Amino acid sequence: MIKHALSVTRADDFAQWYQTVIAEADMAEESGVRGCMVMRPWGYGIWERMQRLIDNRIRALGYDNTYFPLFIPLSYFEKEAEHVEGFAKEMAVVTHHRLIPDGKGGLMPDPTAKLEEPLIVRPTSETVIGAGFSRWIQSWRDLPVQINQWANVVRWEMRTRMFLRTAEFLWQEGHAAYATADQAKVETAKALELYREFAETCVAMPVIAGEKPENERFPGAVETWSIEAMMQDGKALQSGTSHFLGTHFAEAQNIRFQNAEGVFEFANTISWGMSTRMIGGLIMTHGDDDGLRVPPQVAPWQIVIVPMLRDSDEDAALVEYCQGLRDALTAQNAFGEPLRVLLDLKATKAATKRWGWVKKGAPIVIEVGGRDVAGGNVSVVRRDRLYREDGKLDSAIVARGDFVAGAGAMLGDIQESLHIEAGERLRANIAKAGDFAEVEKHFADNAKNPGWLEVQWSKPTGAELDAVVARLKKLKLTVRNVQMDAAPADGPCVFSGAPAVERVLIARAY
Amino acid sequence: MIKHALSVTRADDFAQWYQTVIAEADMAEESGVRGCMVMRPWGYGIWERMQRLIDNRIRALGYDNTYFPLFIPLSYFEKEAEHVEGFAKEMAVVTHHRLIPDGKGGLMPDPTAKLEEPLIVRPTSETVIGAGFSRWIQSWRDLPVQINQWANVVRWEMRTRMFLRTAEFLWQEGHAAYATADQAKVETAKALELYREFAETCVAMPVIAGEKPENERFPGAVETWSIEAMMQDGKALQSGTSHFLGTHFAEAQNIRFQNAEGVFEFANTISWGMSTRMIGGLIMTHGDDDGLRVPPQVAPWQIVIVPMLRDSDEDAALVEYCQGLRDALTAQNAFGEPLRVLLDLKATKAATKRWGWVKKGAPIVIEVGGRDVAGGNVSVVRRDRLYREDGKLDSAIVARGDFVAGAGAMLGDIQESLHIEAGERLRANIAKAGDFAEVEKHFADNAKNPGWLEVQWSKPTGAELDAVVARLKKLKLTVRNVQMDAAPADGPCVFSGAPAVERVLIARAY
Repeated sequence: MIKHALSVTRADDFAQWYQTVIAEADMAEESGVRGCMVMRPWGYGIWERMQRLIDNRIRALGYDNTYFPLFIPLSYFEKEAEHVEGFAKEMAVVTHHRLIPDGKGGLMPDPTAKLEEPLIVRPTSETVIGAGFSRWIQSWRDLPVQINQWANVVRWEMRTRMFLRTAEFLWQEGHAAYATADQAKVETAKALELYREFAETCVAMPVIAGEKPENERFPGAVETWSIEAMMQDGKALQSGTSHFLGTHFAEAQNIRFQNAEGVFEFANTISWGMSTRMIGGLIMTHGDDDGLRVPPQVAPWQIVIVPMLRDSDEDAALVEYCQGLRDALTAQNAFGEPLRVLLDLKATKAATKRWGWVKKGAPIVIEVGGRDVAGGNVSVVRRDRLYREDGKLDSAIVARGDFVAGAGAMLGDIQESLHIEAGERLRANIAKAGDFAEVEKHFADNAKNPGWLEVQWSKPTGAELDAVVARLKKLKLTVRNVQMDAAPADGPCVFSGAPAVERVLIARAY
Repeated sequence: MIKHALSVTRADDFAQWYQTVIAEADMAEESGVRGCMVMRPWGYGIWERMQRLIDNRIRALGYDNTYFPLFIPLSYFEKEAEHVEGFAKEMAVVTHHRLIPDGKGGLMPDPTAKLEEPLIVRPTSETVIGAGFSRWIQSWRDLPVQINQWANVVRWEMRTRMFLRTAEFLWQEGHAAYATADQAKVETAKALELYREFAETCVAMPVIAGEKPENERFPGAVETWSIEAMMQDGKALQSGTSHFLGTHFAEAQNIRFQNAEGVFEFANTISWGMSTRMIGGLIMTHGDDDGLRVPPQVAPWQIVIVPMLRDSDEDAALVEYCQGLRDALTAQNAFGEPLRVLLDLKATKAATKRWGWVKKGAPIVIEVGGRDVAGGNVSVVRRDRLYREDGKLDSAIVARGDFVAGAGAMLGDIQESLHIEAGERLRANIAKAGDFAEVEKHFADNAKNPGWLEVQWSKPTGAELDAVVARLKKLKLTVRNVQMDAAPADGPCVFSGAPAVERVLIARAY
């Protein structure tokens, strides 16, 4: 029986396992500020890798990066009724701009420095960016406008969980304006495809792309699309959304242009966002009972070299050998970039370092001892295949030159194997149900890891939809999305028995 | 006489010129949120270039990137008395976490959702990062800890000016803890040197590095060091600071470690920051009466190709020629990176585009017309040498292959020439004064562009220093810093007549 590196397994307690991975991999920690976390170097380094890869893709779509204010005047929210309805309950409000002594040795907000109009810490930036669009857009010649920003946003969540739901989080928000609804819809789909491709290619996380039901739309949106990933406990994680806003925000904020015939029209706007939540998805997709496994494309360090120092005369030669190895590896490429290689010279035992990097999920850990130097070898541990069949750590002795020459390909192989493993799990855990009794039975019978259900429905709206949502809520279920390339409906609606119009995925979700 | 691209010259009205450059170069604009600006793609693109170049340097110093919360509980500030004294007057305070309808069709903070403890939007992060240090540091083996974060911060300034002083700004803040004061001082100096080298090498902005006087120290610091740049109106701009904090913050926040002998000691901490203010410095260092001139190292686009399209059959061949040119240039390097080249295909007149890029300050603008295609040439405008001696635009026809082969070197030459020009101006505009009457006379005689004065002083402290500060304030002057490599003092103090101990720079400042 394998003795794993973590004190709790996924099967024992998935929620506790998740917190343990974050702690043991030094990714993040509680900050002492309610609902806000500290992202430590390994966690933030993964975010920086994601940023780089997403940013390249956003630029390739023709967007420019910008920066809009953190604070949004209250009145901006009052303009777009549906939007504020959706966010009004959970925003951080700045009311004062000065502190003074409170007379008891502490400090307090200065009553004479109360703001005339409260400022909201942005929960998202449609309103303030829309105000920019209304200044920039006058004529059809000014369109399209396509901008992106990397920013922190705040939503006052009652229950928080690191990476998945924090009061402050980091994200990217794309905003664009187009002349026609058709064009805006095409671009909404392009943003969704960017997310799908990024999640699959870079995070090795298989996702289902599709449209959210009416009740799950972004406040003020005409259509909301999402990518949904399946975590190892069978729950769904919405991992990126793209919204077609129609002319709702344009009307509220007067984003108008004169068309080629000289007639004024409202622009059609879109917005789309992906956040540090993606790191939570990465953990719950690829983590195992030994910690995190980071796909090589987003790993801050792809290969970590641990020299087995002995405080002896041989150490100098060992370090020199490792430096040469690092330099040779750094000259190699994977995924079109130079390898990211760390030589870990910290004053800690080699075994402690090895297990530290296993828990952090570095894709390849190399150990080098005196015997390896003498033989011109390295000992290679692949994080995606940690144990041999007999339960022992699978550490392979390889000729140094062979390892260097094949390191890029090995990283490619690790990336692919993580993706295949997660893809098989996703496909194996989507079942079907033909009526609501089957839905209830499925989730009762598979309480621990029910996966998702594909069902058919009549696409109810309004009160009828509310009733469906309420029925699902009793089972702690939600409609995730309508998969883009799903087969057409061919049976009855599981909720009403009427002829169905489409297939939807239902699941428990984060 | 040259007809310049801007409506106002530096000589006419420097402050108005500054705002005009920002507007005409599409760098930033007022946001509608008090004291906060919108950074548009060209302005933000320059910041992204600065970030990349600074970030590489920070990593080379051995720092790791992290992210700490935007909000800091009020009680954190109460711990460090000197620190809060310095910031207490200008902070944004979050007091509520929900909005509700106000009964008049608008919204208001929900009185039932008042925070028990107000949260401060970070003006800087020593307190919250110090709390992290106190968790992470237990033993001498944990030291040093060296972390950096890229973040937005808020200081409620009464008078704001774009890039130079905004309520919200973007910056980088480095924070580190060491075992000894000596080590911490050495690292404080390394950070300052990083700033000096970055400013000179990348921004082509000559600076004076030195220690700030006691009255200009960061709240809670033992020593504050700065780099100071001279703007074209002779004013000084503090462009980056590095602080030795001693054990002040460690004592307030219990950042203690057990040394090798098992005895508990407080750590010595440092912090250092550089912000979007640097972009204001870039504008006022390199801008001219035709707009901005961006040094190639920080230019989002180094070369812009403007095809002179005529809506004719020849356009296709012209665009193809320009695409080939762009691809050939992109394969070249400057400053160790591939050239950043834009082919501007917007539906605007070529002359409008050319002047647009001149105002934005792209280092090289290439125009290509039908005749250039036929002759295998390009027309080259260097932004640092815009006009010939006869006042006409200096557009040189060069063989395409020659231009491509020499483009990297030309960018290097532009970078250097901007640095030399600014360096000569700095050196030419530092005068000396031997007594206070000379100080007064200098600033009276040179009211429009007085430059800086080097004077000698006895390094007063306490009340004596306050009196000096007050005398200087009447002339709108401040002590900038004590240049690191200045000659020793050899005369009387200009303020007291007593023997001087060091030379200081005094100036008007932003």
